[in-house]
Amino acid sequence: MPNVSAGEMTDEVGSAQEDVASRLQELGLGPWDVVVLLSTVFLAVVMPIEAVFDDLDAAWIIVASAVISIVLVADMRRRYAALGSGYFGAWFTVDVLAAFPFDLVAEIPGIEGTSAGSVIRILALLRVLRVARLFVLQRRWRVQTSLNPAVLRLVFFGFWIALVAHWIASGWIALDGFESGPADLAPYQSSLYWTITTLTTVGYGDITPIGPGQTYYTMATMALGAAMYGYIIGNVASLLANLDVIRSRHLQRIETVNHFMRDRQVPRELQARVRDYYNYLWDSRLGQETEMLEDLPKPLRVEIALHLNRAILEKVPLFRGAGEEFFRELVLHLEPMVFLPGQVLMRRGEMGHRLFFINQGEVEVWSRDDSEVLAVLSDGDFVGEMALLSSQPRANTVTATEYCNVYALGREGFDRVLSGFPEVDAEVRRIAEERRLESTQES
Amino acid sequence: MPNVSAGEMTDEVGSAQEDVASRLQELGLGPWDVVVLLSTVFLAVVMPIEAVFDDLDAAWIIVASAVISIVLVADMRRRYAALGSGYFGAWFTVDVLAAFPFDLVAEIPGIEGTSAGSVIRILALLRVLRVARLFVLQRRWRVQTSLNPAVLRLVFFGFWIALVAHWIASGWIALDGFESGPADLAPYQSSLYWTITTLTTVGYGDITPIGPGQTYYTMATMALGAAMYGYIIGNVASLLANLDVIRSRHLQRIETVNHFMRDRQVPRELQARVRDYYNYLWDSRLGQETEMLEDLPKPLRVEIALHLNRAILEKVPLFRGAGEEFFRELVLHLEPMVFLPGQVLMRRGEMGHRLFFINQGEVEVWSRDDSEVLAVLSDGDFVGEMALLSSQPRANTVTATEYCNVYALGREGFDRVLSGFPEVDAEVRRIAEERRLESTQES
Amino acid sequence: MPNVSAGEMTDEVGSAQEDVASRLQELGLGPWDVVVLLSTVFLAVVMPIEAVFDDLDAAWIIVASAVISIVLVADMRRRYAALGSGYFGAWFTVDVLAAFPFDLVAEIPGIEGTSAGSVIRILALLRVLRVARLFVLQRRWRVQTSLNPAVLRLVFFGFWIALVAHWIASGWIALDGFESGPADLAPYQSSLYWTITTLTTVGYGDITPIGPGQTYYTMATMALGAAMYGYIIGNVASLLANLDVIRSRHLQRIETVNHFMRDRQVPRELQARVRDYYNYLWDSRLGQETEMLEDLPKPLRVEIALHLNRAILEKVPLFRGAGEEFFRELVLHLEPMVFLPGQVLMRRGEMGHRLFFINQGEVEVWSRDDSEVLAVLSDGDFVGEMALLSSQPRANTVTATEYCNVYALGREGFDRVLSGFPEVDAEVRRIAEERRLESTQES
Amino acid sequence: MPNVSAGEMTDEVGSAQEDVASRLQELGLGPWDVVVLLSTVFLAVVMPIEAVFDDLDAAWIIVASAVISIVLVADMRRRYAALGSGYFGAWFTVDVLAAFPFDLVAEIPGIEGTSAGSVIRILALLRVLRVARLFVLQRRWRVQTSLNPAVLRLVFFGFWIALVAHWIASGWIALDGFESGPADLAPYQSSLYWTITTLTTVGYGDITPIGPGQTYYTMATMALGAAMYGYIIGNVASLLANLDVIRSRHLQRIETVNHFMRDRQVPRELQARVRDYYNYLWDSRLGQETEMLEDLPKPLRVEIALHLNRAILEKVPLFRGAGEEFFRELVLHLEPMVFLPGQVLMRRGEMGHRLFFINQGEVEVWSRDDSEVLAVLSDGDFVGEMALLSSQPRANTVTATEYCNVYALGREGFDRVLSGFPEVDAEVRRIAEERRLESTQES
Repeated sequence: MPNVSAGEMTDEVGSAQEDVASRLQELGLGPWDVVVLLSTVFLAVVMPIEAVFDDLDAAWIIVASAVISIVLVADMRRRYAALGSGYFGAWFTVDVLAAFPFDLVAEIPGIEGTSAGSVIRILALLRVLRVARLFVLQRRWRVQTSLNPAVLRLVFFGFWIALVAHWIASGWIALDGFESGPADLAPYQSSLYWTITTLTTVGYGDITPIGPGQTYYTMATMALGAAMYGYIIGNVASLLANLDVIRSRHLQRIETVNHFMRDRQVPRELQARVRDYYNYLWDSRLGQETEMLEDLPKPLRVEIALHLNRAILEKVPLFRGAGEEFFRELVLHLEPMVFLPGQVLMRRGEMGHRLFFINQGEVEVWSRDDSEVLAVLSDGDFVGEMALLSSQPRANTVTATEYCNVYALGREGFDRVLSGFPEVDAEVRRIAEERRLESTQES
Repeated sequence: MPNVSAGEMTDEVGSAQEDVASRLQELGLGPWDVVVLLSTVFLAVVMPIEAVFDDLDAAWIIVASAVISIVLVADMRRRYAALGSGYFGAWFTVDVLAAFPFDLVAEIPGIEGTSAGSVIRILALLRVLRVARLFVLQRRWRVQTSLNPAVLRLVFFGFWIALVAHWIASGWIALDGFESGPADLAPYQSSLYWTITTLTTVGYGDITPIGPGQTYYTMATMALGAAMYGYIIGNVASLLANLDVIRSRHLQRIETVNHFMRDRQVPRELQARVRDYYNYLWDSRLGQETEMLEDLPKPLRVEIALHLNRAILEKVPLFRGAGEEFFRELVLHLEPMVFLPGQVLMRRGEMGHRLFFINQGEVEVWSRDDSEVLAVLSDGDFVGEMALLSSQPRANTVTATEYCNVYALGREGFDRVLSGFPEVDAEVRRIAEERRLESTQES
Repeated sequence: MPNVSAGEMTDEVGSAQEDVASRLQELGLGPWDVVVLLSTVFLAVVMPIEAVFDDLDAAWIIVASAVISIVLVADMRRRYAALGSGYFGAWFTVDVLAAFPFDLVAEIPGIEGTSAGSVIRILALLRVLRVARLFVLQRRWRVQTSLNPAVLRLVFFGFWIALVAHWIASGWIALDGFESGPADLAPYQSSLYWTITTLTTVGYGDITPIGPGQTYYTMATMALGAAMYGYIIGNVASLLANLDVIRSRHLQRIETVNHFMRDRQVPRELQARVRDYYNYLWDSRLGQETEMLEDLPKPLRVEIALHLNRAILEKVPLFRGAGEEFFRELVLHLEPMVFLPGQVLMRRGEMGHRLFFINQGEVEVWSRDDSEVLAVLSDGDFVGEMALLSSQPRANTVTATEYCNVYALGREGFDRVLSGFPEVDAEVRRIAEERRLESTQES
Repeated sequence: MPNVSAGEMTDEVGSAQEDVASRLQELGLGPWDVVVLLSTVFLAVVMPIEAVFDDLDAAWIIVASAVISIVLVADMRRRYAALGSGYFGAWFTVDVLAAFPFDLVAEIPGIEGTSAGSVIRILALLRVLRVARLFVLQRRWRVQTSLNPAVLRLVFFGFWIALVAHWIASGWIALDGFESGPADLAPYQSSLYWTITTLTTVGYGDITPIGPGQTYYTMATMALGAAMYGYIIGNVASLLANLDVIRSRHLQRIETVNHFMRDRQVPRELQARVRDYYNYLWDSRLGQETEMLEDLPKPLRVEIALHLNRAILEKVPLFRGAGEEFFRELVLHLEPMVFLPGQVLMRRGEMGHRLFFINQGEVEVWSRDDSEVLAVLSDGDFVGEMALLSSQPRANTVTATEYCNVYALGREGFDRVLSGFPEVDAEVRRIAEERRLESTQES
C-alpha cells in the first residue's frame, strides 16, 4: 500500500460498502438477481457439506434446496426469454445441473441408503458449478461501475479464498482427516482448522495425514496453498497501490522533490514553501483536469468541463443572465492557473491579454502609484477586463495575497465566445464602463 | 493477476492447450521430435528412481531404457547430419551420456552386485542431464510462436518445480529419510510428502531428519524452498499480469478516469456515458491499430492494414470491382474515428474534406432545413463524397444515431489513390453523379 | 532494496532518526503534543494487559491511568478552543472514551469484583481507539516534512506490527491459551511467543489451540498473519526502492549502458570512460536541476536556482559588487554543461556566443598558434567574454584538462540581464578591456 | 525472471564468475587487497564460533588469528600512507578493533579462566565489525565495473544471508539451545539446523526454545526471518528481471504484438512474418544503437559509433585507404536501416538521395527493363552512388533478396564529410566513373 495509510484504506473500504448498497441498481442487480445470486452462493457452500455428512438431513436444508431449485428454474425461463436459443450453450447445462435437486432425490425413500443414492448424493456437487457465474459478474462489474476496481477485486478475492478453504475442509472430512484432530473439536471445526493451518503454510503439525489418501490430499493442499500465497502476495501490492492511484502519484512527486532539495541542502524554509505549493496544487485538484479531458471526444469533454466549472462561472455576476449555451462555449476556453502569495497577476503598464476569474483566493488591486490597495477581490470576482476590451495597458498592478486558484480567459477565446452572444457582450461592456468611471474618479 | 479474473485465466489456459495441439507444427515439432522429447522427460523422471531403489528391475523399465537408448542414438545421427562437425560441442557430450544405457550395463550378470555395478548405477544419473535441452526449447518457443508467452512460462514453470520436487524426494529416499515417516506410506510417498511439506515451508514436523546427512540435506532443501518461493512469488504477478496485457491497460485507464470523476463528483449519468465511451472503444478495438502499425516497416504495415480493413472496403459497393492493388494503396490512407450518439459527422454549409466509410453504426442524413431525415446509412455505406469531388460546401447535415466506428479518407489521400486507378475513379464519379441528381430531385 | 546496500540503509535510518529529533518543530509537535502522543500509545499498550490480568492493580498503573485521563481532558479543551463546534464529530467521541478512566472506576470498592466491574474493565478497551489518531499524524507528516517518506513508512509499519502482535498475545492470554505453553514461561511470554510463531508462519506447533474458542482465534490469527505477510512483502520492495529514488535511476542507467557495451564488445578502456562519464554526471549532480526546476512556478524557481548557483556566481570576481537583484535575473539564464577531459570549449576562429563560468574543473587557454598554454583557468574563473562583448571570432582555443562542470551564459540572456544593471555592465567591460590588452601584449 | 530461462541464468552466472577472475584488476583488487578481504571474512566467520566454544583453542586458529592481526596492522599502515590524517575517523576505530588479537590475549596464562578472560573473549566479537567494509566494496563495484549489477547483488546477497545465519546459529549455541536438539548432531549442526528451519519459516518444531532467554531469541529470529523473507522476495523479481534488461524488453514487445495479431485473427503466415521481422531486428541488434548514443556527449559518441561501424566501413573497398579521421567524421552520418526480403531499396527513375552500405544481406541490381539481374551485391558492397554524385534519377531498381541490414548515408552528410577529405573524394569519383562505364556497356 504505497503511500496509503491503513486509515485511508478503511475509509475507502467503508465508503465502498456504502456504495455497494446504493448502487445495486447501477450494478444491474434487480431484487430477483440478488435472490438468484444468494441461491448460487448457498449451493456452493451447502452442497459439499451435505455430500460429506451422510446424516445431514435437517428440515431447513431440504426446504432451502427445494426452494432454490424452483428459483433457478424460474431464472432459466427468464434467461431463455431474454436470450432465445442462444442460451443453449455451456451455461445452459450448468444451470440445469444447478437447478436439479440431486440432494432431495437422494433422500427419497427407496433410493436413500442404496448405492444409487450414494452416487446421486455425490452428483449433487455438480450444483456447485453454478458459482462460476460470479466470474462473469466480476468481469462485468469491473468495467461498468464507478466502484473502485481495486476494492472490488479485494472483495471477490476474499470471497473466493474463503470458499476454496471451505471446499478443502469438506474434502478433509470426506477423507476422515478430522479423526486425527483434537477430540474436543467438531469434525468441521477440526477440518477447517487443518485447512487454514496448511494453506497459510503455518503448519503446526498437530494434525497430520494418515494413510496414502490423506497424504496425497495434504500434498495437493500444500501446493495449492503455496500457489495461492504467491498469487496473493503478487496481487496485494498492486491492489493496494491502486486504491488511490492519483494520490500515490502526488506523494511520489513530493518524495522526489524532497529528496532533491535535501540532497542540495536547500534551506528548510524554502523547502517548506515548495512542499506547500505542491500540497496546494493537490488540495485544489488543479492540473488533473487537463490530462483527463484531452483523452475524451469533444461532446463529453464539454459536459465534463461544464460540470467542473459552471459553479465558478455562475459566481461571476456578469454572467448570471447568460444561458446554458454561453457556458458551453466558454468552458473550453478557460485555462486553470495558480498564483503564489505575493505573485503578480498583472503589472501596471504591461499590455494585458487575459481576464482572470478568481475561483478561490484573494488578490489586491493597487493604486497607480502602488502606494495603497484600491480593492480586494476574491472568490467569484474577476479582474483585468479593461485591457481586454480596449487595447490599453493595464491600469493597476494586481497581486495575490494568498494561494489563488484562477481561471484565465485569453482575449482571442473571449472575443470568439462573446461574438456569438450579443446580449452578454452588452452586459460585459456596461460593467466595464462602470468600473472605468470608478477608477477615473478615484485617480 | 491484475484485472484478469480466474475465469478468464481458465479460458486462456484452455485455449492455449488447444493451441499447443494444433500448433506442434508451428513449434517446429515433428512426430520424431515429440518422441525424443518424451524420451528425455522419461529419463529425467525414472533414472533417479532407479538409482535409489536397488531392486527396481521391472521388465518394462529395462525395455524402455533400451528403446530410449536406440531412439537417442538415432537422434544423434540425425543431428550430426544437420549440424556436421558443429555438433561436437557440449551438447554432443550430453547426448552421448543420455544415450548410453548405464542402467542396463549395471544389470549385466557379473557386474550386478559388484561395486563397479553400484558406480555404474550412479553414473546412470548422467542420463538426466539431457533434460537441459528443454531450456533451449523454451527459449526458442518464446520468440517463435504466437502462443501467449506468459502461458508458456506458467507451463514450463510447473514442469520444472514438479521435476525438482521429484529429484529431492529421490534423494531423501537415498538417505533413508523415509524410515522416520509414517509406517503406512510407501517410501516414495513418504519422501514426496516430506519434500512438499518442506518446499512449501509448511513444515508439519512429523518427519524430521535423523543424523548429520539427513540434516544437511534438509537444510539445503529448506534453503532451496525459500529461494524457489521467493522466485515464484516474484514471478507470479508479472506472469498473470501479462496474460492479457492490453485488457489490463484498458481497465487501468477506466480505473483512473473513474477515480477522477468520483473525486470531482461528476453526476452518475455523465460518469456512465464516459465509461460507455471507453468500453465502446475497447469492444471495437479501435486505437490499437495505429500504435501497432507504426512500429512495422512499410511492406508488413500494408499487409496487416489490408487484413484488418479489406472487409470494410469490400462492403463499399463502389469498390467491389477494384482490385487488390487498389486496396493496398487505399488502406494506408484510412483513419479510424469514433462518433458518439448525437455527434455531428458533417454540418451543412461547412467545407468538407473527408469521405466517411461507415464501418459499423448508423447515421442520419438530414434535409437542407434540418427538418426531416432524408436517409439512414449504416454498415458499408459511405457519405460525404460530394464535397470531396467538387469544392462545394456540405449539402446536408449528418449525425450519428448510435456509436459509430468510421474510417475517414482525407481528400489528399483520396485523390492520390484514385489517380492511379482510372477505372475506379470513373465508377466513383458515376455514383456521385447519381446521388447528386437524387438530392437535387428531393430538394 | 534495489541498488541500496544495507550499509546505506543503516545510514539513512540513522540520519532520519536524528532528523526526527531536530524536526519535532517541523512536524508540528510541541512538547504538549508529545505528551498526548505518548499517553495515547501508553493506553494502546497497557489497556489490553489490564483487561486480561484481573489482579494487575500495581500502583503505578493506577497513577498513570489517572494522569493520562487528566492530560487527555486538557487536550480536549485545547482542541475545542481551536476547532469550536467542528470538534463534535467522530473524533470527539473517541477522545471522550479515551479520557474516561474506566479502569479506575472498575477498581472502586463496591464495583470491583461485581459483574458491573467486569463489564467496565472490558469497556476500558475503548480507550485504545484513540491510537487511530496516529493514522492522521502519519498522513499529515507524509506531505509536510522533508523526512524521507519511505523511512517514515518503515517506522510506522514496525510500530503497527508490534502493536498488533501485542494485542493478539493479550487475546491469547484472555483465552487461557498460554496454559498449553511451556511451564517455564510467564503467561505473557508464552502468548507473545505463540503469536510471533503463528504470525510469521513459522508454526513450530509446540503450542496448539485447545477447544473451539482457541481454535477459531488461531485460525483468525493465521489468516491475519498470511494477509499481513503478503502486505509486508508487497510493500518492502517499493519501500526500499524509494529510500533512494534518484540513485536507483542512476544505477539503472549505468546497468543498461553496461549491458549494451558488453553485448557489442566495446573495448574495456572505452567502457570505463563511458562509466566514468556517468559517474561524474552523478557525483556533480548535474542534470537533475533542470528536471526539478521546470516543474515549479517562476517565483519558486528563481529562489531554488539562486540557492544552487549563488555560490558559483559569487566566486566570479566580476560580480562581487553586484547585488541580490542581479543574481536573481542571472540565475535563470545559466545552462549547466559538462566537458570531458580533452574536449574543446571554444575553437579559435569560430564565432562565439557564450560566456563560460567554470564551476568546477580546469581549462587551458591556448596561444594563437596552439603551441603553448597561455593560461590555466579553474573554479570561479570565466572565459569567452571577448567574443560576447564584440562580434569577433574567438581569439584562442580553450580545452578542458579534466571533467569540467561549467555554466554557460548565452549572449542574448547576458545582454538582457546586463542592460538592467549598468554598474555591473561597466565593470564587465573594464575587465574585458584589461584582458584584451593582456592578450595583445602577449601576441 | 521474466523471460529469462534458468539456462540463460546459469550461463550468465557462469560467465560472470569468469569475469570476476579476469577482472580483479578492474575491480581495483590487488593481491594484497584479496588477502585483507579474506582475513576480514575469516574474522567474521571464526570469531563468533570462538566466543561460544570455551575450549576451542585449536593451534591453527591461534596462528591464523595472529597472522591476521599482523596483516591488518600492515593494512592500516598502508591506509594511513594513502589517506593521511583523514583516516582517523570511524573506520580507523573499526580497523584497530579488528587488528587487536583479543582472542589471543584471552588465552594468555593468568588471564585465561579469569572473569577478565571471559570479558576479553566476548570483546573479540568486535573484530567482526570490519566485515562492514564489504558494504563499501559492494557500493564501489556497483558503479565501477562492467559486471552485471544484478549478478553482483545476487552474490553479495547470498553471502550476507549465509553469514547472518551463521551468527544466529552461534548465538543459539551460546544460549545452549542445541541441548534440546537431536542427540546425534554436534552442537553447531543442531544450531544451524534450527536457524535454517526458523529463518525459512518452515518451523518443524523438533527443536523449540526452553526458558525465557531462548524464547526471546527465537522470537527475534522469527521476526528477522520474516523481514528477510519479505526483503528477499521483494528483491528477487527486480533482480532476475535485470539479468537481461534488453532481451526482456524485446520479448515484451513480441508478446504485445502477438496478442494483438491473435486478437485480430491475422493469418498465421503473416503473424510468422511479423515475428520474423522483430527477431531479425533483435538478432542484428539494430535500433539499440541510436538510443544508447544520443545519451552520450559527442566525443564518447564518436568513439562508440566508430567501434560499432568501423568494421563495416573498412569492408567498403572504396574507403580502404581512408584514415582514422575520415571514419570519425563519417560514422556520425550513418543511419541504420532494415530491408525485408523483396523490399525495394531504390526504384529506377526516382531521384536518389542516399548511398547504401550493405552491412549484412544480399541485394539484386536489376537491368533497366527489370527483366534480369545485372549484379548481386552483398556484405561490404555499396550501391546508389551514381545518383548521389550527379543529380540523375536512379538508373536501376535494387531489391533485397533476404533481410538486409544496411547503413544509409544521406547526400548532405556525404558531401560534408567528403569535402574535408579530397583524396577519398577523388577515389570515390574514380570508382563511380568505372561503374557508370560498366552499366553503359551493358545497356
